[in-house]
Amino acid sequence: MKNQYVLVLHGGAGTISPEEIEAEKAYRDGMMVALNAGIAILERGGSAVDAVVETVRQLEDCPLFNAGHGAVFNEDQRHELDAAVMDGATLRAGAIASVDRIRNPVLTAREVMDGGRSVFLSADGAERFATERGLEMVDPGYFSTPLRRLQLEAVRRHDLNSQMLDHALAPRDGMPDGRFGTVGAVALDRAGHLAAATSTGGMTNKQAGRIGDAPVIGAGTYANDSTCAISATGTGEHFIRACAAHDIHARMKYGNQPLGQAMASTISETITPLGGEGGLIGVDGHGNIAMQFNSVGMYRAWVYEGYQPEAAIF
Amino acid sequence: MKNQYVLVLHGGAGTISPEEIEAEKAYRDGMMVALNAGIAILERGGSAVDAVVETVRQLEDCPLFNAGHGAVFNEDQRHELDAAVMDGATLRAGAIASVDRIRNPVLTAREVMDGGRSVFLSADGAERFATERGLEMVDPGYFSTPLRRLQLEAVRRHDLNSQMLDHALAPRDGMPDGRFGTVGAVALDRAGHLAAATSTGGMTNKQAGRIGDAPVIGAGTYANDSTCAISATGTGEHFIRACAAHDIHARMKYGNQPLGQAMASTISETITPLGGEGGLIGVDGHGNIAMQFNSVGMYRAWVYEGYQPEAAIF
Repeated sequence: MKNQYVLVLHGGAGTISPEEIEAEKAYRDGMMVALNAGIAILERGGSAVDAVVETVRQLEDCPLFNAGHGAVFNEDQRHELDAAVMDGATLRAGAIASVDRIRNPVLTAREVMDGGRSVFLSADGAERFATERGLEMVDPGYFSTPLRRLQLEAVRRHDLNSQMLDHALAPRDGMPDGRFGTVGAVALDRAGHLAAATSTGGMTNKQAGRIGDAPVIGAGTYANDSTCAISATGTGEHFIRACAAHDIHARMKYGNQPLGQAMASTISETITPLGGEGGLIGVDGHGNIAMQFNSVGMYRAWVYEGYQPEAAIF
Repeated sequence: MKNQYVLVLHGGAGTISPEEIEAEKAYRDGMMVALNAGIAILERGGSAVDAVVETVRQLEDCPLFNAGHGAVFNEDQRHELDAAVMDGATLRAGAIASVDRIRNPVLTAREVMDGGRSVFLSADGAERFATERGLEMVDPGYFSTPLRRLQLEAVRRHDLNSQMLDHALAPRDGMPDGRFGTVGAVALDRAGHLAAATSTGGMTNKQAGRIGDAPVIGAGTYANDSTCAISATGTGEHFIRACAAHDIHARMKYGNQPLGQAMASTISETITPLGGEGGLIGVDGHGNIAMQFNSVGMYRAWVYEGYQPEAAIF
């Protein structure tokens, strides 16, 4: 039986700032450019892995999203980027963390996966590997944008993030946020295979060296043909402690829950009780999709083969 | 109801080399020193977190085990250490990766957990945090031992590890091995709380920047009072792809399997099919323990409150 492809992406979750609401059309356009790039691959019979990597690469290149160009600043006013990809057919995975000279972290994560020697590389070792593989390297300033610098200053003024773990996040009316955000994509291809990819600049004003959930297989990124492909965005520490993406897989595999119920349970029973805030996107082997969040909004777009692409924020 | 404490440790799994068999008594003694340090804490009513951290700290300080002093060399003839700890009562966790100047990585993982700002720190950021917290820093040469240098040369001669993923590991008769190994501990304390800690030098001749499963919450380390505490050792890439530790938790929580069955299923159904080799230790909230491996041996020791400590290798 030939499957019909499905592709879902997210561009981050959290409080949506007034500036972002004004720029809603730009965000929707940015998501559609990325979605269409993935669709083009799936439409010609390409793999779910190729589709999610290309979709995420496009989101990395768009300055509106917190990944690649447009990544947030850490406490040192530097960037530290994380990314991962997982192939649901083989359970192969590749991830990198804490890099600031690789233009497209998701492409390096893919190279790590294909290289087959390691699954997870950090910092200088990841950049050396990317250089050896001929991936495009950039000056760290490439990632910086004026909006992210304003957000760093705003977060520091409000002293957010300094004590955030184990505390529910207070509402922040009318303030530029961008404290977290991540991009990701999940897909089912016509061959029936699933894949997930995630890329992020992390959280504004994050601790130097901090690794979030995006590159942690089973936390922010997971794919397994027997169940689902998942990509997360949110307060990464809680998603790591929750093993969020693998928790959805496990509720499906061992608890026989359908994808939507499994994702809802992971959010309400596993992430929210920890004080976590964010969202997840997923697709199962039958082409069902789920996009859920406990934050104010989550940038997302999706397509079922043969139907019009759609996008939503709230 | 007052619980009776339980403590289990491992000192790595894999092919046991002839040198190691000759030194069997030394290994057993090293494990007993560490186990007794943890017992002393539990005996006076201390927490599972305190017990597993102290047990692992002792194993880090013993040159026989691949963690802290005695860690293996990577491809650059340097050390890169990883460690993690997780508190089953609160699901708080701390982890560090790719450090080479922190004497006891597990103590820094504990500080990360207690600090509450991040869960996972890498490389320079982790070392800066350790320095700020007043943890003991050392010259990278502190970790080096002559045996590990011989093992690096042996691994390079045999060109092991270069293509190891997705391939079952061939037997290596009579060769010093030490390609992988990790130390870890899990405990149930008298208050009924679980904790897990893991620390490692990784795999001999590993790629620079490579992060293994030990510091990945849900892969090499996981604890949750509702199910179990788990620490793993083995070919880390496979354990990451398997989300091994969280998979055991999930089989218990969503599949209602007892600990021993869940661990056996994770090894046979999740790790072995990927080509993974290694083992796991675990304890559940009732004080049941499990210690299983698909490698030739796994250094391990355990104690039930009121009984004599025991140790085994094969």
